[in-house]
Amino acid sequence: MKKYNVAILGATGAVGREMLKILGERKFPINQLKLLASSKSAGQVISSDFGDVIVQQATTESFAGIDIVLGAAQNSVAKAFAKTIVEAGAIFIDNSSAFRLDQDVPLVIPEINPEDVSLNNGIIANPNCSTIITLMAINPINRLSKIRALYVSTYQATSGAGENGPKELIAQTKAVLNKKPIEPKVFPYQIAFNLIPQIGDFIEIGYTSEEMKLQNEGRKILHLSNLKVACTCVRVPVIRSHSISVVAITEERLTIEETKKAIQNADGCQLVDDPSMMLYPMPLTTSDQDLVYVGRIRKDLINANGINLWCCGDQLRKGAATNAVQIAELCIVEHN
Amino acid sequence: MKKYNVAILGATGAVGREMLKILGERKFPINQLKLLASSKSAGQVISSDFGDVIVQQATTESFAGIDIVLGAAQNSVAKAFAKTIVEAGAIFIDNSSAFRLDQDVPLVIPEINPEDVSLNNGIIANPNCSTIITLMAINPINRLSKIRALYVSTYQATSGAGENGPKELIAQTKAVLNKKPIEPKVFPYQIAFNLIPQIGDFIEIGYTSEEMKLQNEGRKILHLSNLKVACTCVRVPVIRSHSISVVAITEERLTIEETKKAIQNADGCQLVDDPSMMLYPMPLTTSDQDLVYVGRIRKDLINANGINLWCCGDQLRKGAATNAVQIAELCIVEHN
Repeated sequence: MKKYNVAILGATGAVGREMLKILGERKFPINQLKLLASSKSAGQVISSDFGDVIVQQATTESFAGIDIVLGAAQNSVAKAFAKTIVEAGAIFIDNSSAFRLDQDVPLVIPEINPEDVSLNNGIIANPNCSTIITLMAINPINRLSKIRALYVSTYQATSGAGENGPKELIAQTKAVLNKKPIEPKVFPYQIAFNLIPQIGDFIEIGYTSEEMKLQNEGRKILHLSNLKVACTCVRVPVIRSHSISVVAITEERLTIEETKKAIQNADGCQLVDDPSMMLYPMPLTTSDQDLVYVGRIRKDLINANGINLWCCGDQLRKGAATNAVQIAELCIVEHN
Repeated sequence: MKKYNVAILGATGAVGREMLKILGERKFPINQLKLLASSKSAGQVISSDFGDVIVQQATTESFAGIDIVLGAAQNSVAKAFAKTIVEAGAIFIDNSSAFRLDQDVPLVIPEINPEDVSLNNGIIANPNCSTIITLMAINPINRLSKIRALYVSTYQATSGAGENGPKELIAQTKAVLNKKPIEPKVFPYQIAFNLIPQIGDFIEIGYTSEEMKLQNEGRKILHLSNLKVACTCVRVPVIRSHSISVVAITEERLTIEETKKAIQNADGCQLVDDPSMMLYPMPLTTSDQDLVYVGRIRKDLINANGINLWCCGDQLRKGAATNAVQIAELCIVEHN
């Protein structure tokens, strides 16, 4: 079996570390592994299933001979290195939002649109975490009948803000319990025992950048150019799984039975839906694993073509790192 | 000024204690005050603006000479004493859900349908806490153009489960931080750093009793018999303010400007909506006060007649105790 030279750009952050872990778990065929980060993190030693690896500073020289770069850095870093990576002949699978909506960059959830990988010109984008988790849950519905619209309210974990997100939640929680003062740094306000209805920056129409991602990225991934999404994104005091309340409006009327069956049979989804046993998805039970749990499936009481549901998924894994590694797996199948 | 003999039934619970506090704050004209509870709580002394009061066991003899009974007990207790209270000539303002949908029982939010108070036959029901907070936010919209439908996802605080709710959240949070085991009692699962998408019991169509309250009670309070509501209720690790993500679909198309103005001018509402200053409602800032904060007001991206918003309000105060005391104030105006 061919082995590949793989680099992780932004290897010391929460998503980068998770990518490294998942490459090991999934036994990705690695020849050479490079962990790249800013000069600040260079020299750190990170243990992995591929041995101890010294973090190197990312420079334009870093990518010679590399086959696949997994990007877990900010937009500015992704933009700074993308051209160099592509020119070096590597495929850049990027978790930032820098290239997601570019016409010649596929945006891929492997269970939904794996065929789009082949359209890449060197860059493949990994979607937004809430987008991945929501689309994983509603894609089986979309296969039964095209989705016209999604009403979405999110309950997003602190891990979505990077590795300092959960740290700030824990530190603030301790401070509140000990009646100590709090100085928010990662989040704009106290997140312990609170909710913050802003993720990303506000755009002119009163939505946030995060809220628009589900419509913009959803249209591209599902190949539904007219999909309408009205989304409210809220940060909640949870460690690392995102939860989403969804109403999906379809072209034809679906039964609850066929909807549940489709979700049960969908790769990457776990149907957790038994009200009589009080079984439904919760962020605590979906953390540190790859399946998106879907439950609370019921008829919409407003639109006869609507299905209401609740889903949870690990933001760092399927919402980011696992999806990127799955894309890398598709790429090497393509190559072989 | 006439003074009234007032009893609180269920005086030792979270809502009962808040009612006592709010009667004092609002200088309710009280002659005699009775605090009634189960035999277990009888004998407790509770300090109030009306002096120290000894809690008495509620019996059928408790209501002679009482003008107003504020009910803060469970459905079974409300049902057990309602007839006695009415026969004693008192008005029973009940916070339980036992009588809310009864045809001859008005269900009142004083800012919305104060006129319904006069239709009472001895019992007036206080609405569900999420219903009060949501309707306070959308009533100004309904006055501009009738609301046809509401898509709602709630983020409900632990105080909604009674005084042991916040205690369990705090105790579990400490246990998690200290890596100690957790035994959920008030909530069906761990609520610390988690979300539970079940409040109330499941009914046959897959919704919970709590989720149906907003439609059933909303229709009655707003006098909109065809109002459709699709609701998902979720318990969140917050102490005492409920937050609600709402899409309101109206008969006519409204502008954001007129909507904001209507909310700004509505009694009991506080417009907190300035994205440029990162100002929006949060449960932390709405706790322990009476106004319902409304923000994140924007056009729905799916339905041109839709308005999306986010609101927060103190569940124990406007969501329960304050609303009940306001109803009592309406009753004594009626009497005078």
